[in-house]
Amino acid sequence: MTRWKIIIEYHGARYSGFQRQPDVPTIQVAVEEAIQKFCQQDIKIIGAGRTDAGVHARGQAAHFDLEYGERTLSAFELCKAINAHLRPQPITVVHAQEVPEEFHARFGAKTKTYQYRVANRPYKMALEEGFSWWRKKPLNIDAMRAGAKYLIGEHDFTSFRDSECQATSPIRSVDEIMIAVTPIINGNDILFTVRGMSFLHHQVRNIVGTLTLVGEEKWKPEDVKTALEAKDRTKGGPTAPAYGLYLHDIAYE
Amino acid sequence: MTRWKIIIEYHGARYSGFQRQPDVPTIQVAVEEAIQKFCQQDIKIIGAGRTDAGVHARGQAAHFDLEYGERTLSAFELCKAINAHLRPQPITVVHAQEVPEEFHARFGAKTKTYQYRVANRPYKMALEEGFSWWRKKPLNIDAMRAGAKYLIGEHDFTSFRDSECQATSPIRSVDEIMIAVTPIINGNDILFTVRGMSFLHHQVRNIVGTLTLVGEEKWKPEDVKTALEAKDRTKGGPTAPAYGLYLHDIAYE
Repeated sequence: MTRWKIIIEYHGARYSGFQRQPDVPTIQVAVEEAIQKFCQQDIKIIGAGRTDAGVHARGQAAHFDLEYGERTLSAFELCKAINAHLRPQPITVVHAQEVPEEFHARFGAKTKTYQYRVANRPYKMALEEGFSWWRKKPLNIDAMRAGAKYLIGEHDFTSFRDSECQATSPIRSVDEIMIAVTPIINGNDILFTVRGMSFLHHQVRNIVGTLTLVGEEKWKPEDVKTALEAKDRTKGGPTAPAYGLYLHDIAYE
Repeated sequence: MTRWKIIIEYHGARYSGFQRQPDVPTIQVAVEEAIQKFCQQDIKIIGAGRTDAGVHARGQAAHFDLEYGERTLSAFELCKAINAHLRPQPITVVHAQEVPEEFHARFGAKTKTYQYRVANRPYKMALEEGFSWWRKKPLNIDAMRAGAKYLIGEHDFTSFRDSECQATSPIRSVDEIMIAVTPIINGNDILFTVRGMSFLHHQVRNIVGTLTLVGEEKWKPEDVKTALEAKDRTKGGPTAPAYGLYLHDIAYE
């Protein structure tokens, strides 16, 4: 038996998130079916974490155990075989490696990095539709960076947590929020990078939604601190839409 | 009468190129119809240049003349009105400005910049399908850069010109070919930027197709020089597909 770690890239638009659920298309179901088709075994994959409906990934991680008889299977052959059965879905296994039996995609994950993409200009995107959140008003980048600082470190993130979040504790630690800006015609392409050990339900999307309020100067940077300290979801900003969010990377020790 | 310069962004997949042709959808037709709908005038736009079927643009330029009675119209109002009538097509007017009557989008264009995007890794893209050309074999970037150097300057580009090209002369001047590399999981996202006064039919796509042969080490960098000097299209490399190409910018004096 071999334990494999795989890295999965996907466009989330047509899926009800990563995790298997009854009667709806999910990334997990698609990948499991593709593995089953090539190896004729009833394989379950364990993902590093859920992603919500519509959220994309460049670096979702998962593991599974495979019996493959006498023959050894290379990582390239494995990826190729799974990808052949995933076609034409917008899901690709971009990396595979054999890992020790103790490896666990979920419990072994040390850091998760998400990216959120915002198109900031007066007119909607012809090329980034479904890949980026369109914000018409010019966003003040310095103000957003100043507001983001209040969220770094360990905090009670109740104000940034979906009311349906099932985590037992609202305490989370955010290691980094980077805001990178690429000029485009009449505006900016803005990429938020948010890194932490783990996140609450909608936490990254609520952070981005809140920071855009600061960017639009409806909030002052210090209002982020006030919202955080309120420990009340109704005091946080709006939830940015799913289609701007990318699970970028899962780091293991 | 006011002459307007507009900058147009579009995803080219569903269009038979920029220029009006009978009985097929083109970008020009879509933009003219949108302008006509809001101003009730039979407006013709003059584009800076054609783009082929399937080619995208971030910075196509065009001009047209508009009578708008007593009322003055702001650039923002103009863009908004055209874009409202373009919806839901993947075409957006991202900039507009009043220009002198002598301004001509085609004859006044000094430099054109195209970008070509290549996804270089063993497995196909889940997120960049239709936006980037997938090349499986690892491309040697230094070799491609060395090969590109032979194309800089004024040359007879017959070997890089489509057999149906209608230009009277095959002489063109390429000012710059930049090759930027962004690492992705298991590969690279490669962006070619090609700048010149004007280009022959398929010239940029043939340059990229040829340089990928050098990147795959099927050709040596010097073979690009040999191909160029042959002045024979059959000695050039293949034509890279339309969906990786972006008309990036048109510069005016």
